Amino acid sequence: MALPSPGYTITLRVQVPASQRATSTVVAAVADAGAAVTGVDIAHSTPDGLVVDVTCDTVDTQHSEQVVATLEALAGVHVLKWSDSTFLLHLGGKIEVALKTPIKTRRDLSRAYTPGVARVCTAIAENPDDARRLTIKRNTVAVVTDGTAVLGLGDIGPAAALPVMEGKAALFKQFGGVDAWPVCLDTTDTEEIISIVKALAPVYGGVNLEDISAPRCFEIEARLRAELDIPVFHDDQHGTAIVVLAALVNALKVVGKELSEVRIAVSGVGAAGNAIIRLLKAQGAAHIVAFGREGALHPGLTNGDPHRRWISENTNTDRFTGTLREGLAGADVFIGVSAGNILTGADIATMNDDAIVFALANPTPEVDPIAAAEHAAVVATGRSDHPNQINNVLAFPGLFRGLLDVGATEITDDLLRVAALAIADVVDDDELNSAFVIPGVFDHRVAEAVAEAVRSVSTS
Amino acid sequence: MALPSPGYTITLRVQVPASQRATSTVVAAVADAGAAVTGVDIAHSTPDGLVVDVTCDTVDTQHSEQVVATLEALAGVHVLKWSDSTFLLHLGGKIEVALKTPIKTRRDLSRAYTPGVARVCTAIAENPDDARRLTIKRNTVAVVTDGTAVLGLGDIGPAAALPVMEGKAALFKQFGGVDAWPVCLDTTDTEEIISIVKALAPVYGGVNLEDISAPRCFEIEARLRAELDIPVFHDDQHGTAIVVLAALVNALKVVGKELSEVRIAVSGVGAAGNAIIRLLKAQGAAHIVAFGREGALHPGLTNGDPHRRWISENTNTDRFTGTLREGLAGADVFIGVSAGNILTGADIATMNDDAIVFALANPTPEVDPIAAAEHAAVVATGRSDHPNQINNVLAFPGLFRGLLDVGATEITDDLLRVAALAIADVVDDDELNSAFVIPGVFDHRVAEAVAEAVRSVSTS
Repeated sequence: MALPSPGYTITLRVQVPASQRATSTVVAAVADAGAAVTGVDIAHSTPDGLVVDVTCDTVDTQHSEQVVATLEALAGVHVLKWSDSTFLLHLGGKIEVALKTPIKTRRDLSRAYTPGVARVCTAIAENPDDARRLTIKRNTVAVVTDGTAVLGLGDIGPAAALPVMEGKAALFKQFGGVDAWPVCLDTTDTEEIISIVKALAPVYGGVNLEDISAPRCFEIEARLRAELDIPVFHDDQHGTAIVVLAALVNALKVVGKELSEVRIAVSGVGAAGNAIIRLLKAQGAAHIVAFGREGALHPGLTNGDPHRRWISENTNTDRFTGTLREGLAGADVFIGVSAGNILTGADIATMNDDAIVFALANPTPEVDPIAAAEHAAVVATGRSDHPNQINNVLAFPGLFRGLLDVGATEITDDLLRVAALAIADVVDDDELNSAFVIPGVFDHRVAEAVAEAVRSVSTS
Repeated sequence: MALPSPGYTITLRVQVPASQRATSTVVAAVADAGAAVTGVDIAHSTPDGLVVDVTCDTVDTQHSEQVVATLEALAGVHVLKWSDSTFLLHLGGKIEVALKTPIKTRRDLSRAYTPGVARVCTAIAENPDDARRLTIKRNTVAVVTDGTAVLGLGDIGPAAALPVMEGKAALFKQFGGVDAWPVCLDTTDTEEIISIVKALAPVYGGVNLEDISAPRCFEIEARLRAELDIPVFHDDQHGTAIVVLAALVNALKVVGKELSEVRIAVSGVGAAGNAIIRLLKAQGAAHIVAFGREGALHPGLTNGDPHRRWISENTNTDRFTGTLREGLAGADVFIGVSAGNILTGADIATMNDDAIVFALANPTPEVDPIAAAEHAAVVATGRSDHPNQINNVLAFPGLFRGLLDVGATEITDDLLRVAALAIADVVDDDELNSAFVIPGVFDHRVAEAVAEAVRSVSTS
């Protein structure tokens, strides 16, 4: 089911004989190989031949190499070189530091630097609250990772995590007007990460933890929340939870069920699963059963870390024991934040009528969304090539926009809940249907709606 | 001798009677109070009166308040409010994070973020050297401080130091095209600072230490140099040393003396003094005597930290003992990086003919530069309102530009020396005279000349 994607765009520089037919043959061969041709440009033309740049989307790296091989096999055709648009975009990184006001004259220098700046320093030394007024702290968030749980790639380390953190910073600015800076830490020690982030805090008005593996992420977040006077947010937990709640609120409207009444099966008890369960309960969900690799968590379980035990003690009041597959029978809602391809359409068929399926494992969902849609009323995934994409970018830019605007010092569960409802509300009643329970990531209404909701409930 | 400065520009919003005479009276009163009027704008005009914005440079905050009081004392005149241009410039900080490429479409998102970014992460995980190619590491420097020795303000803490670090970052970008980011650490513990900077290193291609008090700055710099694979530079030491050597090389040309032969008195044995002495020796200076608060340092001294002892053992081969004032007699060069107003013109008169005086204490030089100029051939200060300003901005932007361009892993003494000579060389022979031994801070030739020199001697 994999389709060519702009995440895998390549440009092939190809030498061909000087004829229209030759160029057409090349384009046809690229298309026949399964790539989506998006552009053909003649780079050089001589009586002996042409050099043509063919740009196309491919499925993945292996597919790109197949396309190259296909062309090389054509008579008279030679691939001079090929480049990957994603890598070209990343050369030298995706963000930069910009001056708000240029320093071109002595007058500029005297104000932005010495001697004028000394007066600003003194003002902050005398009144520390002025830091939020007179420095970048007012609009700046640290995007902190140790590189231990990056995308689906796992523990790839802080250097390899940097492209994701740069991307996150870019999204913060593009969608929320927030200045975010990557902090990729070359340590995985919980105490060290906590003390480093605390030491870095003077520059920042908020902390966004990212891609830190469980269970360390829980301890790091909890301690930083307790010990810092700026809001601390773990996007993998709470960003996901916010968007899941938003989508679920709207999906339940579509099927005409109540959150307090539906039976919810959650697959995955890591960072995201934990936060989703907490937020669903805060909004009134009463019948949740969570499944780990060993089946349903239930009251009385003593193994696992404190966060797993919290789930045991706060879900599954009917003390169901059994596998996910068994537990799915008769459920109204499935929320997967676990692993790909663990369920089939037949499993979804055992759920109640008008089932809601959020299969969020990435890149491969827990169940094929097309198969799931044959049995469920609403299907959502983390993927961009299906309707109802659960994407954290709907939450974090507006959330921090609001927090920074009011100089918030903490993030409460109620604030997360309110942010989720604000996202859900962006979908008008006449827009709402089973294929549109959550706004698209480029819906410009979302970030401002979230920011406004956050401002309305935050206290500085 | 203090003059109105654009570091102290204020705008007064003043209510005056509706007559040209009234406005003129206000402007005249501001000028009479010693401020330099740079603009007069009518904000509102009614038959009953005018509201006028008067913009002027003042000497300092107290003087600004005197100007306000002067106007309030005028009949019919009322100061509605006044604002400080330096504070206005600082609202919300001086730098921001910018996207190199906007993220406006799904295609953009697929490349800059998921799914495309995963491929870039994997490339770096497999080949760590790719981080310099595919991330901001290629062009990014950390500006690290603990806020213990900020400008002349001393230990004001990391939050109050942030405006200086933002200004530094702005200068890095404006003059060197370097992306620099403020790291203001809420700890003064040497070991903690070292371990934090090491943990932060994956994001950065270099470290600029700033305004960290001695002697901790020596240990921090030395350890980070030894333990990191990116260049580490302490600007208060080496930035100052580079510009001092550059100015001295040219000043010696003006007076026709040789560095290896002149007698040099250095006042101040902290971070800057230490680095200046090391760099002068590297360039061939042979007769240096350094003075602390207790007088000349000489071989055999056992008190003080290792850096002071290094000076004792590597200067003053004649074993001079005595005060700075005594030691100045017969010296060719005075370099002060100590405290204001510790010498008089009469002291300078005891120096050799064609004396060179660098009085760099800020904001008040060791000796009044106008008094010094009556007896010395060349006088330089750290101030912008006298000729020959010794300003670190001549060194650090070009230095890091060059280091990043070649992916340098360390900074050698020779590199510092070469950078200094490059700055000196920017002053053409026909430009060189006693009032122009060092280029101005806005001389666009400097950063590129330094970068080119650094590239020529750096190894990655």
